[in-house]
Amino acid sequence: MGVASGSGMKRNEIPQSAIWTPYRVPYADTDAMGYVYYGNYLTLFERSRNELMRAGGFTYAEMESRGGAMLPVIEAHVDYRKPARYDDAIEIAAWVDEARGFRLKIRNAVFRGDECLATGHTVHVCVDATTRRPVRVPQYILDFNPSAGA
Amino acid sequence: MGVASGSGMKRNEIPQSAIWTPYRVPYADTDAMGYVYYGNYLTLFERSRNELMRAGGFTYAEMESRGGAMLPVIEAHVDYRKPARYDDAIEIAAWVDEARGFRLKIRNAVFRGDECLATGHTVHVCVDATTRRPVRVPQYILDFNPSAGA
Amino acid sequence: MGVASGSGMKRNEIPQSAIWTPYRVPYADTDAMGYVYYGNYLTLFERSRNELMRAGGFTYAEMESRGGAMLPVIEAHVDYRKPARYDDAIEIAAWVDEARGFRLKIRNAVFRGDECLATGHTVHVCVDATTRRPVRVPQYILDFNPSAGA
Amino acid sequence: MGVASGSGMKRNEIPQSAIWTPYRVPYADTDAMGYVYYGNYLTLFERSRNELMRAGGFTYAEMESRGGAMLPVIEAHVDYRKPARYDDAIEIAAWVDEARGFRLKIRNAVFRGDECLATGHTVHVCVDATTRRPVRVPQYILDFNPSAGA
Repeated sequence: MGVASGSGMKRNEIPQSAIWTPYRVPYADTDAMGYVYYGNYLTLFERSRNELMRAGGFTYAEMESRGGAMLPVIEAHVDYRKPARYDDAIEIAAWVDEARGFRLKIRNAVFRGDECLATGHTVHVCVDATTRRPVRVPQYILDFNPSAGA
Repeated sequence: MGVASGSGMKRNEIPQSAIWTPYRVPYADTDAMGYVYYGNYLTLFERSRNELMRAGGFTYAEMESRGGAMLPVIEAHVDYRKPARYDDAIEIAAWVDEARGFRLKIRNAVFRGDECLATGHTVHVCVDATTRRPVRVPQYILDFNPSAGA
Repeated sequence: MGVASGSGMKRNEIPQSAIWTPYRVPYADTDAMGYVYYGNYLTLFERSRNELMRAGGFTYAEMESRGGAMLPVIEAHVDYRKPARYDDAIEIAAWVDEARGFRLKIRNAVFRGDECLATGHTVHVCVDATTRRPVRVPQYILDFNPSAGA
Repeated sequence: MGVASGSGMKRNEIPQSAIWTPYRVPYADTDAMGYVYYGNYLTLFERSRNELMRAGGFTYAEMESRGGAMLPVIEAHVDYRKPARYDDAIEIAAWVDEARGFRLKIRNAVFRGDECLATGHTVHVCVDATTRRPVRVPQYILDFNPSAGA
């Protein structure tokens, strides 16, 4: 599902700190309308977050063991611009929009060439893996985020 | 994923016009954190929208043939309150929040007993199935919506 | 995906010990061919296994805590007969085909009314939840299986 | 889900004609057991079939338009050897096992390094996209298959 609405983002509006993840759409992701199912964009967002963290020199898996921190999602939002189809070669951009205290906001945009198919974001709260209580976002995540300040 | 944040909605805050869809969580919906994967809430929302329309005396499938109308999603939003787990018996509420012109906004809430696990909404634009151009939301959808006015 | 091939099973060929699970197909399960995606039948099979166990007076979740046993899948097979479509009201039958030593074989059939859409099976090995080593299928599972003998 | 059973295949047993598709496991693919959900292996198989066809100089999408042919699945089988986990870098091999008349059998194997995690196959029947009746597997698919003979 998904249909044109508004202009979306242009590729040159994506921050330089963004990490781009290439992805080829399988039949599995599509629905009977012939488009990528709207819920599957959240999986695309997750794939790009994983690569964002890997690019930062650590992985989510490592983070869980290292700092004992987890980043459950507390909010997700998607704006659908144009539909993606089976076998499309798309790219998902992810970048840290805000990181302070216990919260981390990551923004995403999905492109097919220069066409912006969707934009969105997720908000995460950093919790201790054992106690599941909120803890400060680890310094190595903040360090990795060019726009987070000191 | 998903963790407590804010208070969510209480069952008695859900409008009377809402339709409730019961659902049993399979392993397929869960992830390695032990919770229902965050993207799968959009599938839960879809299940409840389908039942909302069926309760209105028509189905999405019928609507596509009858009025030649489709309702692609242009926006989706989820606020995650508490995690759902494997084998949980949950219920998803869906109700029409706003229907005017080309747009339809449907709100959702997911409950396990009295606990609100998630809330959210989707915004749809009504398009002609053939031309894929925006058309007014059909009267029989408006009629079905108690809060839409005349 | 899926297309007619062979005759499948007739409803009256399904054993009386089978448990039937009703299911309404959402858009999420379909693909661009307009049919339920072939991989999603394994989720349908799981839903019916869950209800099979619940009907036996225990749930998989309970079993994990009670006997400390888990039933990972070591083999899955599906024969696709006719496609299921969006909004179809289907039923999935599940029954124990064989239970001895460490192994449990469960058979499945998917119907839309009298039409057999798919058949298949899964083979599970019973393992201790802690050691993950094979253990005998618990007696309360064998007891529940009418065809397993003493 | 999935647990060791038998020896699986060794990497050097995979035919040279096989195409290998790399894949990084997201949270979305895992379940509460901490492993890739058993049904998701069929999506992995599909991803590798898509790359198998692309390597043959055509894509499934092109085939549908070019020859007007479709390849719905009539049988799927998976043997699970060892579990895949979140963030694993895995590879899926796909190769044509048999292609004659209306039928095409494709085999798959999933590896993490030298470890064989799963093996399986799908059987497809070639149908005309318009009439949905069986047609011979197109010559350009047979040509692409080194083991299919003249």
